[in-house]
Amino acid sequence: MKARELREEVCRVNRELGRSGLVTLTWGNASAADRAAGVLAIKPSGVDYEALKPEDIIIVSLEDGRVVEGTLRPSSDTPTHLCIFQSFAGVSGIVHTHSTHATAWAQARRPLPCFGTTHADHFYGEVPLARPLRPEEIAENYEWNTGVTIVDSFRELRLDPLQMPAVLVPGHGPFAWGASAAKAYENAIALEESARMALMTLALRPDAGPIPRELLDKHFLRKHGPGAYYGQR
Amino acid sequence: MKARELREEVCRVNRELGRSGLVTLTWGNASAADRAAGVLAIKPSGVDYEALKPEDIIIVSLEDGRVVEGTLRPSSDTPTHLCIFQSFAGVSGIVHTHSTHATAWAQARRPLPCFGTTHADHFYGEVPLARPLRPEEIAENYEWNTGVTIVDSFRELRLDPLQMPAVLVPGHGPFAWGASAAKAYENAIALEESARMALMTLALRPDAGPIPRELLDKHFLRKHGPGAYYGQR
Amino acid sequence: MKARELREEVCRVNRELGRSGLVTLTWGNASAADRAAGVLAIKPSGVDYEALKPEDIIIVSLEDGRVVEGTLRPSSDTPTHLCIFQSFAGVSGIVHTHSTHATAWAQARRPLPCFGTTHADHFYGEVPLARPLRPEEIAENYEWNTGVTIVDSFRELRLDPLQMPAVLVPGHGPFAWGASAAKAYENAIALEESARMALMTLALRPDAGPIPRELLDKHFLRKHGPGAYYGQR
Amino acid sequence: MKARELREEVCRVNRELGRSGLVTLTWGNASAADRAAGVLAIKPSGVDYEALKPEDIIIVSLEDGRVVEGTLRPSSDTPTHLCIFQSFAGVSGIVHTHSTHATAWAQARRPLPCFGTTHADHFYGEVPLARPLRPEEIAENYEWNTGVTIVDSFRELRLDPLQMPAVLVPGHGPFAWGASAAKAYENAIALEESARMALMTLALRPDAGPIPRELLDKHFLRKHGPGAYYGQR
Repeated sequence: MKARELREEVCRVNRELGRSGLVTLTWGNASAADRAAGVLAIKPSGVDYEALKPEDIIIVSLEDGRVVEGTLRPSSDTPTHLCIFQSFAGVSGIVHTHSTHATAWAQARRPLPCFGTTHADHFYGEVPLARPLRPEEIAENYEWNTGVTIVDSFRELRLDPLQMPAVLVPGHGPFAWGASAAKAYENAIALEESARMALMTLALRPDAGPIPRELLDKHFLRKHGPGAYYGQR
Repeated sequence: MKARELREEVCRVNRELGRSGLVTLTWGNASAADRAAGVLAIKPSGVDYEALKPEDIIIVSLEDGRVVEGTLRPSSDTPTHLCIFQSFAGVSGIVHTHSTHATAWAQARRPLPCFGTTHADHFYGEVPLARPLRPEEIAENYEWNTGVTIVDSFRELRLDPLQMPAVLVPGHGPFAWGASAAKAYENAIALEESARMALMTLALRPDAGPIPRELLDKHFLRKHGPGAYYGQR
Repeated sequence: MKARELREEVCRVNRELGRSGLVTLTWGNASAADRAAGVLAIKPSGVDYEALKPEDIIIVSLEDGRVVEGTLRPSSDTPTHLCIFQSFAGVSGIVHTHSTHATAWAQARRPLPCFGTTHADHFYGEVPLARPLRPEEIAENYEWNTGVTIVDSFRELRLDPLQMPAVLVPGHGPFAWGASAAKAYENAIALEESARMALMTLALRPDAGPIPRELLDKHFLRKHGPGAYYGQR
Repeated sequence: MKARELREEVCRVNRELGRSGLVTLTWGNASAADRAAGVLAIKPSGVDYEALKPEDIIIVSLEDGRVVEGTLRPSSDTPTHLCIFQSFAGVSGIVHTHSTHATAWAQARRPLPCFGTTHADHFYGEVPLARPLRPEEIAENYEWNTGVTIVDSFRELRLDPLQMPAVLVPGHGPFAWGASAAKAYENAIALEESARMALMTLALRPDAGPIPRELLDKHFLRKHGPGAYYGQR
């Protein structure tokens, strides 16, 4: 993929994000990585979604985070995206939002249980809560260290980032990802809707438990991997 | 009805469904049966609603589920629709969604009580929860067996599908139906709104009970059957 | 006001109602009375709001409920409107909806407390719950008797319909009214928003009480009556 | 800034406010101060947002509240705005709404805790609840005295209005402010969304506590003051 196409894709997904209902004000950003070219492309900081043009998108080195192309400042969350791209091999798109319901779970410091097939179609089990940042991780390189807590938590929980393409950062909000920016955006939407349904499920049944293992397997695997049979292929 | 008209109706209802707020991403589908022709028409799998054209709609045999016309893959939920059409004689339209509030009730594994006349205008009593699928029903022919659990539950509860045109599948979501795809769509809307109001009713009165029998009869029967006097007839 | 103007006003308010978010499907209707002419004008039953034209509006005698002009069937709720107009002298507009939050309070059979100035700007105290209909009132002349329960409740509570321009019918939903159809519509909006805020207020403070009497007086009276100083006059 | 520009800005922000979802009917208003000219500009009372033109905006003396320019009546909340502008030196824009979730907190008489970084990006800690008005403060100069309770509460809590650009008035609703009307509007949006997320956070964890001090500092200070590094500067 050329830098021009990468910027166009990232611009398009950020503009969709702005219209999606997942984002208030400028609280969200989408990025994509071109691993062959060794770069990521990301939204500039604090710019309105509707005003975004492909040439506003910033190109950043995947190796060291230096700005390679672009005159605006990249999103202040760029180091978090960089850390995730460096650590999660198959991931080429990331979407960060403060979407209302997913953020409520993150603020309540609860992982998101899999109460139904809507969730199971996208996330292979409970969406984890990352570990909290330590005070010194907040003081220095805060945004990079946010990524470190995500990567640490996935390692500890032995989660495959492509089977669990989202996380809740406690007291902050969700990050979602996927094989492309468009897939990451789709997972961000699925996460928000699953979080909304789960909140209501608990209101109706405070002791609700997850769906049975065989139903989780059925739904996740009919959409993902070699046995998938959903959609047009 | 000609195959062309059937495809046009199913296309139209699926497109409306995409704009209705009942559906996120591609999580929903509408179908219609032409019983004289022995076929059903249904949405293709994983296609955006706005992009749907009548020629994309798939025609499937009502007898054995074979694709009769169409080049795309039919919705992965087609066997569930087929099973319902085969078992529920007067039903000629089905709408499946993961609409937020109805799905929350399904995830909480609670049938939807009739707390008011909004509900009673469309559903003649409590909307039932289907029985859970057994592990072996999930492993093989999952989508067909989802339909089997619905039909089993209606038989056990001795419910008339035209007086109770919806069901909640536990851990999954709602199916609604009716004499046409348009009627099924209307019932899907009424179900979601009834589920939303019922959630709030319980928040305000945790021990809320159903409306009196005579009020249920009055509302359902003023809209349905020989004594109906609602609308233009 | 001429019949033509009356139909135009009622058509306009019903069309606004259809776009307001207060109404799902065709669950709502607006009417206006011309007391000099001895008639009311009301929406036809089961017709889509967007399709309404002034000539579709039905003119009904305020005395005996006979259709005076119009070829469609009037709303099935017409006898309720008629009963309210006959009993509440200063009322010349009525709006009935099944708006979500007001209906949840009606289904929970709780009157709506005055928790804040938003409520107090429109309703001079707690919005009452009408008494339930008796079985024989449901069996015969159900819609007229719905009006009777409203009028009875206002008499018993010694409420002035112009100071309390709304009611919750238990297990059913709200009716709002005012000096015109436009005012009734405004009160229906204020009722729904007050009901929504009140539900959340209780979630945050289950023992919340009403605002002090002097604040209620201040807000209601700065908008209504001889001392009003809100708006352009 | 010329009076013409001031009116244009206030007109623009009021029109945006009308489309924002923060305002029902005419329950909200925005103002801006021109301290050099000794005036504030504010919305006229009870006028629809869509119909507002710059020449409708009222210019009022910052010193004594007299109308300096304009033929309509200023918002009935003008004395509250005046009192805030007179007491809070760096504030040049105010937005008052009855936005649903912030009003629910105000009605529940609870200050809004800082449960996450969404909140911390705009408000440097818990958003306070103003003290209640005394009966005699309601009886005379109610709107001015509403401002007095806000100013009193900030003084007592030793809060800097530019670090805490919002307040909840008990039984009433929120006021937000900032260095301009546009900034005040942004803070009103952030307050409503924070209030919405906080309500859900408590539903998921009734004993939720605020985010750690170092995370609050990090988020507020990366957007405000000399060390800020968010956005394009």
